[in-house]
Amino acid sequence: MSAVSQSTTQHEPPAAAAKAGGLDAIFRPKSVAVLGVTNTPGTVPHDIFTNLLAGRFNGAVYPVAPRKRHIAGVRAYDYVLEIPDPVDLAVLVFPGRVCELALEQCGQKGIKAAIIISAGFREVGEAGLAREQEIKRIAAKYGMRLIGPNCLGAINTEDDVRLNASFARAMPDSGKIAFISQSGALCTAVLDYAQGKHIGFSKFVSLGNKADITEVDMLEYLADDPRTSVILMYLEEIRDGKRLIDIARHITGEGANPKPILAIKGGRTAAGAAAAQSHTGALAASDVVCDAVFRQAGIIRSKSIEEMFNTAQLLAYQPLPRGNRIAIVTNAGGPGVMATDAAIERRLSLAKLAPDTTAKLKKDLPPTANLNNPIDVIGDARDDRYVAALQAVFDDPAVDQVLVILTPQSMTNITAIASAVCNIKDRYAESGKTLLCSFMGAKDVAPGIDILQKHGIPHYVLPEWACDAMEDAVRYRNWLNRSCTELPRFEVNCPRAAGILDPAPDGYLSEPQALDVLSAYGFPVPEYRLARAADEAVSAAERIGYPVVLRIVSPKIIHKFDVKGVILDLKSAAEVRSAWAAMMDAVRSHVSASDVHGAIVRRMIPSGKEVILGVSRDPVFGHVVMLGLGGIYVEAFRDVTFRVVPIREGDAAQMIEDLRTGVVLKGLRGEKTSDLGAIRDALGRLSQLAADFPQIAELDINPLIVHPAGEGAHIADVRIRLEKR
Amino acid sequence: MSAVSQSTTQHEPPAAAAKAGGLDAIFRPKSVAVLGVTNTPGTVPHDIFTNLLAGRFNGAVYPVAPRKRHIAGVRAYDYVLEIPDPVDLAVLVFPGRVCELALEQCGQKGIKAAIIISAGFREVGEAGLAREQEIKRIAAKYGMRLIGPNCLGAINTEDDVRLNASFARAMPDSGKIAFISQSGALCTAVLDYAQGKHIGFSKFVSLGNKADITEVDMLEYLADDPRTSVILMYLEEIRDGKRLIDIARHITGEGANPKPILAIKGGRTAAGAAAAQSHTGALAASDVVCDAVFRQAGIIRSKSIEEMFNTAQLLAYQPLPRGNRIAIVTNAGGPGVMATDAAIERRLSLAKLAPDTTAKLKKDLPPTANLNNPIDVIGDARDDRYVAALQAVFDDPAVDQVLVILTPQSMTNITAIASAVCNIKDRYAESGKTLLCSFMGAKDVAPGIDILQKHGIPHYVLPEWACDAMEDAVRYRNWLNRSCTELPRFEVNCPRAAGILDPAPDGYLSEPQALDVLSAYGFPVPEYRLARAADEAVSAAERIGYPVVLRIVSPKIIHKFDVKGVILDLKSAAEVRSAWAAMMDAVRSHVSASDVHGAIVRRMIPSGKEVILGVSRDPVFGHVVMLGLGGIYVEAFRDVTFRVVPIREGDAAQMIEDLRTGVVLKGLRGEKTSDLGAIRDALGRLSQLAADFPQIAELDINPLIVHPAGEGAHIADVRIRLEKR
Repeated sequence: MSAVSQSTTQHEPPAAAAKAGGLDAIFRPKSVAVLGVTNTPGTVPHDIFTNLLAGRFNGAVYPVAPRKRHIAGVRAYDYVLEIPDPVDLAVLVFPGRVCELALEQCGQKGIKAAIIISAGFREVGEAGLAREQEIKRIAAKYGMRLIGPNCLGAINTEDDVRLNASFARAMPDSGKIAFISQSGALCTAVLDYAQGKHIGFSKFVSLGNKADITEVDMLEYLADDPRTSVILMYLEEIRDGKRLIDIARHITGEGANPKPILAIKGGRTAAGAAAAQSHTGALAASDVVCDAVFRQAGIIRSKSIEEMFNTAQLLAYQPLPRGNRIAIVTNAGGPGVMATDAAIERRLSLAKLAPDTTAKLKKDLPPTANLNNPIDVIGDARDDRYVAALQAVFDDPAVDQVLVILTPQSMTNITAIASAVCNIKDRYAESGKTLLCSFMGAKDVAPGIDILQKHGIPHYVLPEWACDAMEDAVRYRNWLNRSCTELPRFEVNCPRAAGILDPAPDGYLSEPQALDVLSAYGFPVPEYRLARAADEAVSAAERIGYPVVLRIVSPKIIHKFDVKGVILDLKSAAEVRSAWAAMMDAVRSHVSASDVHGAIVRRMIPSGKEVILGVSRDPVFGHVVMLGLGGIYVEAFRDVTFRVVPIREGDAAQMIEDLRTGVVLKGLRGEKTSDLGAIRDALGRLSQLAADFPQIAELDINPLIVHPAGEGAHIADVRIRLEKR
Repeated sequence: MSAVSQSTTQHEPPAAAAKAGGLDAIFRPKSVAVLGVTNTPGTVPHDIFTNLLAGRFNGAVYPVAPRKRHIAGVRAYDYVLEIPDPVDLAVLVFPGRVCELALEQCGQKGIKAAIIISAGFREVGEAGLAREQEIKRIAAKYGMRLIGPNCLGAINTEDDVRLNASFARAMPDSGKIAFISQSGALCTAVLDYAQGKHIGFSKFVSLGNKADITEVDMLEYLADDPRTSVILMYLEEIRDGKRLIDIARHITGEGANPKPILAIKGGRTAAGAAAAQSHTGALAASDVVCDAVFRQAGIIRSKSIEEMFNTAQLLAYQPLPRGNRIAIVTNAGGPGVMATDAAIERRLSLAKLAPDTTAKLKKDLPPTANLNNPIDVIGDARDDRYVAALQAVFDDPAVDQVLVILTPQSMTNITAIASAVCNIKDRYAESGKTLLCSFMGAKDVAPGIDILQKHGIPHYVLPEWACDAMEDAVRYRNWLNRSCTELPRFEVNCPRAAGILDPAPDGYLSEPQALDVLSAYGFPVPEYRLARAADEAVSAAERIGYPVVLRIVSPKIIHKFDVKGVILDLKSAAEVRSAWAAMMDAVRSHVSASDVHGAIVRRMIPSGKEVILGVSRDPVFGHVVMLGLGGIYVEAFRDVTFRVVPIREGDAAQMIEDLRTGVVLKGLRGEKTSDLGAIRDALGRLSQLAADFPQIAELDINPLIVHPAGEGAHIADVRIRLEKR
């Protein structure tokens, strides 16, 4: 399958290994050398090696341990170059400087890939960073791919490989879920947690400092991995934002075999980001931008490990919900009520059962049962009542999803009910309906839960969590079904904008320059002229038509309103003339006459809703566009939304939907709806402008005044700051 | 201790039993009869009886089972009256009509209390409701207290009682937590769940249909129960809202030994409420009102069983946090980052460690460890490193709370670390610091978790949940420490208001009447006069002073603006005169001349922030006051807050804090802060007015215009609707 597995020569050219993706050498090696092994159980350098043996690796494992004869019964070598056979993968646990020397020898030996478990690199400061540069250099020289350093290792459960190159306690079960983690120790918690739930994995990898292989490389590799159907990630930093969006969007919905991706991003808060930094030397991208990226890429963002696995189980083991109509079958009224609340709050709807269904239920259930959804089979129900109720709802075409709730009364035959649910699952395998269970409790219900989970039926401690998972699944289905929009390409006058932007020095453009740039890109800039004296202002006003606005132009004045540099609603030549005099008078107490370049005379914009649009540059994702409602909304509620440039048509539309305060644009109290098309248009042009000119560091349109539908919008103010990089 | 336990005569007068609270007969009986027992294991009528025996009840148990000689080896009786000894408590499992007959005999036998397990009452509709009335009548006749019907039963774990009068699977461990549930089957899930976590209970009761004993009775009983230190409730409806607030406020903070109360309210959504209704025939109070009540009463509202027990464990087993400064000790960077994010998001703060603490850590931890908070003792840490780090943070006075995180690497000695944490807990028992743990995973960490939980250290599957619990605990501490304010009593002219409100028929008051009522209660009503003709309007305006507002007065016109019945900002006699003509012209196309009583001339109110105040009547809690911001805020964001009448000074202040949009009142963009005192004053007067006049069905002040601090507020519009009940 891979270049690596067929390799016989020891010194292949770097390019070949890299071309094969290189990652097969990590996940499907035929032989592994562990460098730095010791004979002390309970230490990383020992356990890594014995884990490989205990995991029944399908190949040869060579311990490299200077001055040791054998480790755990296996013949040891002083140096990797001493090993007489070819080696595909090296696992390094040597501490300190020895690690670099050993890696160099791995290169000489022609090893294709290495996992560096050892810590003491970028995460410990500058000296460590230099060491990390050194191992990158060595790896590049020999065309080796690297996992780590500072990581737990990697696991592949495929039966013809069985690689546990990690210091986790045990090999996980085989399954359809891949897990990528930036935190090593978190992996062990996840493995143990998953084992408790009988959740298996296809691949499991701890990326550590990501000196070479990042989450993006892993995603590319997993995209084509037939054994992986759901991908989970824990990230603290994102290295290559644009590539992440591209590959994730491909995997989650636009490729041939879409697979959902779930991610937890650690370091949401400033304190959390600081903790992450000292942990893997992560560079934090702004969390709001991260949120935007996940949405743009179709990545489901989870808030905790529990939430992530709750959703992953559903996606891995059950069909995606066809719709959001849920039927609840319970032996307990209270949990039925709680599940109903949870379902509604998560935008599921309670399926309206067909009369036929209710008739069947009436026949099979006792008179005190509740035949409406949630169906209450009553506390003393045994398996027969569950079977009757489940058959009825599985046969009802109005039901998309089924949630089974059980509470353990003294007469509840828990394991019999669990087995009956498994039978129903098998009998209705073709129904396409999603089946989830919540056997509530812990001790007595445990054997029942075991039966369900071993049979691939997702189980949730609380019905609420089942609803959380269902909400995520419905959202993922909607993402799959969305109409995939294009990147809009507007007709613009790029050379005219370039004529202003390319020669301009770093710093703010003047208002006339900024308006010219926006005009060139087709934004709705109201008619304006630059006047250098009162007479010019009057004649400009006469040409434009009253009423007009006067706005000071000076490179020294950023906040025009603060210095009385804006005068609105001038209705005649006389008003323009006296406003000019008053303005020049006012601003001269702030800046010298030579710094005043005149004033802009602009047509007064009719009133409308104020919207803010902006562009900024994120250290990880590059240009980002922002949308919010102006004035009080952005200041008081911080209700803004972001997308990474370039944005598609669907993104622009979704940005408006994102705003909590967006209802204001939809026409409250009998007002007309605002011109949403004009906002989408402006967002699209903004994205194109930012993509075309990397030197734009900041751009604020504040506000864009939006008129009722069909009447467009106008730019009322803009600032552009340039900073070449 | 109780009248019941000393009882020897069989027919005490009802009053005496009632005076003793009556609940001791349920929770501390010396003898129990179970009526309706059968010999079929796995049925409710059988298991109830054997559960009493299996629980080792410290008294005599008598099975009543017509035509049976013995049940489970115990001599049976045909009728309760046949039992030769006194009986304190009857447990009824007879189905149908037999239940009422049996209860009647219990009364004749002089039994003080009964638990009716049987279903088929109010929850099945009208016929059932009649049966429920009948058992209430019988109980009242004999002065019997009742639990149920339609319930799981009651449990008391006290060692000298050991009562398991329920069809739960097993007797729970003894502990400090009391659980009150309206849902029976939920109880069994809770018991099983708690057993898995080694959580014990003092009392455990399923209230069912609450024909007699309600959550309020239970709270009164538990208030003085020395074995209960935390009270948990699951409710679907609330029967007696005002009493609930009083007793809960007493228990949670104002009594001698405050105990926290945690509650889940099922039926938050309309669909959930409907499900609850068919389940225990519950009458749903509005959920927002419920939320308000819980806040007024200091009840912590939990969203799920997991959340409730997470917080309850902390409150039952650990000291209340002295402050919100948390120290995190972890062997895994990722979970440390996640815990930090969670702590910050829950308004905890990361303790800033003393230099001395960091020095100690530096001495005891390896060089790759992170010595800042979160303290990372690194993945290969064993118990010695945990001990060193824990000692350091327990010794640091800047730390209020300690969270211990563990992930299971191959070298992690889980049980040794758990034992070490237990030792630390004991050694620092006097420190007053709160200690929580999260050993992440499921299988390998289980033995460690067991050790912790048996030692009374709360354990959380995820560090995030520990932070949730801590947030609740900090909030409860703040509730305990709040300055307890009084019910304000304003000087008002009650007779003047009564003169208008008492004779008025049901329906809306006219605007002049409504304004007079508000004036009598000291609200800031701007000066106004009723004019019947243009001349009167002009002379009123002259007296009041310009500018003025003209507002139509007609019993047929509710929405004045819609019929052009309001004209603002009239600056002269001429403007008033022409406005009068225009208005009369406009309204006459809507109502006949005889229905127009004239117009109000009112001083124009200077601009300010618009606030909405209201009163409505909730079916369960009675009068409720509402506060929100006017205009767009209430319409678009539905950002309103409620309190049950009467409100204290602290409630009024807190209502303003509740509003998400309340920042608008705090002076954004350099504006002055609004006059919050004027809002609090209006809320207090509104509460007093509603309390004084039960016939007020609806009152809307929309808007109250609030000026900058010190400049007061003005009522711009009011509507009052009366409906006597």
